[in-house]
Amino acid sequence: MSDSNLPRIRLKSKEERRIKSGHLWIYSNEVDTAVTPLQGLEAGLEVLFEEASGKPLGRGYVNPHSLICGRLLTRDAKRSLDQRFLEFRLQQALALRERAYDQPYYRLVYGDSDGLSGLVVDRFGDYLVAQLNTAGMERLKAPLLAALEAVLKPKAVLWRNDSAQREQEGLPLEVVVAAGEWPQQIDVVENGLAFQVASESGQKTGWFYDHRESRRELTRWVKGKRVLDVFSYVGGWGLQAMAAGAASLTAIDASEAALDQLQANAERQGVAENVTSYEGNAFDVLRALLEQEEKFDVIVVDPPAFIKRKKDFKSGLNAYSKLNGLALRLLERDGILVSASCSMHLPEETLLDTVRGAARHVDRHAQLVYRGTQGPDHPVHPAIPETHYLKALFFRVNPAL
Amino acid sequence: MSDSNLPRIRLKSKEERRIKSGHLWIYSNEVDTAVTPLQGLEAGLEVLFEEASGKPLGRGYVNPHSLICGRLLTRDAKRSLDQRFLEFRLQQALALRERAYDQPYYRLVYGDSDGLSGLVVDRFGDYLVAQLNTAGMERLKAPLLAALEAVLKPKAVLWRNDSAQREQEGLPLEVVVAAGEWPQQIDVVENGLAFQVASESGQKTGWFYDHRESRRELTRWVKGKRVLDVFSYVGGWGLQAMAAGAASLTAIDASEAALDQLQANAERQGVAENVTSYEGNAFDVLRALLEQEEKFDVIVVDPPAFIKRKKDFKSGLNAYSKLNGLALRLLERDGILVSASCSMHLPEETLLDTVRGAARHVDRHAQLVYRGTQGPDHPVHPAIPETHYLKALFFRVNPAL
Repeated sequence: MSDSNLPRIRLKSKEERRIKSGHLWIYSNEVDTAVTPLQGLEAGLEVLFEEASGKPLGRGYVNPHSLICGRLLTRDAKRSLDQRFLEFRLQQALALRERAYDQPYYRLVYGDSDGLSGLVVDRFGDYLVAQLNTAGMERLKAPLLAALEAVLKPKAVLWRNDSAQREQEGLPLEVVVAAGEWPQQIDVVENGLAFQVASESGQKTGWFYDHRESRRELTRWVKGKRVLDVFSYVGGWGLQAMAAGAASLTAIDASEAALDQLQANAERQGVAENVTSYEGNAFDVLRALLEQEEKFDVIVVDPPAFIKRKKDFKSGLNAYSKLNGLALRLLERDGILVSASCSMHLPEETLLDTVRGAARHVDRHAQLVYRGTQGPDHPVHPAIPETHYLKALFFRVNPAL
Repeated sequence: MSDSNLPRIRLKSKEERRIKSGHLWIYSNEVDTAVTPLQGLEAGLEVLFEEASGKPLGRGYVNPHSLICGRLLTRDAKRSLDQRFLEFRLQQALALRERAYDQPYYRLVYGDSDGLSGLVVDRFGDYLVAQLNTAGMERLKAPLLAALEAVLKPKAVLWRNDSAQREQEGLPLEVVVAAGEWPQQIDVVENGLAFQVASESGQKTGWFYDHRESRRELTRWVKGKRVLDVFSYVGGWGLQAMAAGAASLTAIDASEAALDQLQANAERQGVAENVTSYEGNAFDVLRALLEQEEKFDVIVVDPPAFIKRKKDFKSGLNAYSKLNGLALRLLERDGILVSASCSMHLPEETLLDTVRGAARHVDRHAQLVYRGTQGPDHPVHPAIPETHYLKALFFRVNPAL
């Protein structure tokens, strides 16, 4: 759409500062609605953002029904958000991943950090799983599909449009094959090890690429060790430990389907005889293992986000503390505890202090030996702290000094 | 010394709380000097620390002339700080390093984190370089040397006792061969690559083991690229990049001796023809390279601590900002900037924000693709934030979105 015909969103005086410092989101209270009303604009519409002075800030899209009412996609006000633009962004994103990884298994697009606010694309070789998390991205669905096909020539594309964020944007929840035929199982290769996952029914896009670098670090600590993988899902941590020479794996998850998949992956890998899995609530299973006086040399706790919203902070923190406390009590002398969190609202230092407290409580000395976070296929946008969410702290644990 | 004959240091009411939460340092204003005067105690003396109630907290040593007047070495009040104790601590430290590394090149002892407050030991195969940074460690010199010899059977031990911390403790600055014969050059192997260093005359212990993991990460980004290594010292970053297939290396350092050593290492490695070095002030050399319109694909800035004390914060931050700004302007499109800092007083988030600001200033979009920090041979003590000091942030840089 040509510049002149585009609806404009004018910010109030001084509200352009955060945008100029690099941020890409506009909150509804920052808009000068007397000059450019939000009301009546179609959700997802392409717009031109401008300062109070009328100077253009760039292009993006709006959603008048969302607290974040505007998202900037480019600072070039003359640039249309069309297929060509989307192809350019995808090429830039692809160049980073191809430089960082030998094989085509990664998060290809990570929203704002790749200049495509509202879009997530995970690549599994020839298969692409995308999440359109905003009304603006939903509206770009057709040119986006064409751009994905032009740049990546995939065998199939799946819209995994069932994220919580879509609800907030007033979008329907659905899982739809956008192009090609989607197989029940697809392959993913991480740190050289192959897994099978079900992207239509599994968690998120079927796989969590974000812990890849921390799982590689795990392989350094597991040779000949008894490994416990809490919230194992399909075995991302535990089976990579087995491939690195762990003596045994005990996996805990609440999902029967995830554990079935883990066992199938273990069989494929030829390690099934040393893998045990427990279906159930992680806290209950950990307490049962404690009662049986079980011990493990390496324990990974990688729970779902206990702090989804700020108001969950206190109860969530308490859950992290309990969980890590139970793990510490199951840990053998000279053990390794991997304490992960994907809660964006939990700062790394707070998780560190939680484990410190839990360790002191059971009279242990924990040495932090690795601070893991999301890999380069989830780049952090330095102006948008929300793009940094993942923690994986590795501790070596011994009796108190 | 038996429990009953040991001098006691009693803390004031409630001052035991930080110690009980895991910390190991006692500040002079926390001592109940009416009951247990500090004055007159010999610097470095072994003591028993106790709560206001008289309940023992553990053993350590004092220095009445230092702001940190006490350091706890063990929570077992009955444990003597003798050779046997030191051997036990060394064995524990060694076990961690042997688990993490294939070859005997690492920081063997990292002070408080290894339960040996005031002691640093770097291992270079059969050679050990130690720093005794407190009066208490200085006083334990004889049993410590015996313990090092018993546990590690080194060919030689060097006391590299010229740290700034020794001045604060009122100790003389000296470099002394403690045992064996010290060669002019010793080998160090990092991430599979061999270097020669001079531990008697080089910076710190002759090598900076702390960036090992980040230098390994660097190898992921350099193939076929032009690399600029600012504050190169003897080539730790740059020559590992060359070994990973970088096209060329340009090194900048203020020390002629360091650059000579870098060139010698480059020759040994067989890459000298693609290595250029500039001796001089880094800021001046960077400005000269800008004037010559030079460009690099990968730039590492790893300066000495610009913020040594809290009061240097503002001027130091300004220096980091200038340095990263210059580097960004020398960086080719789709370039990688590695921004390091060893200033304990500079939080990672502040360094990140400094690079964000510098990038916006020159209209670039920086994506953070790696957050490096010290490796497992510099474990962090979760209750002692001072044990975490190192940052190495990797950015992929392109024109603004």
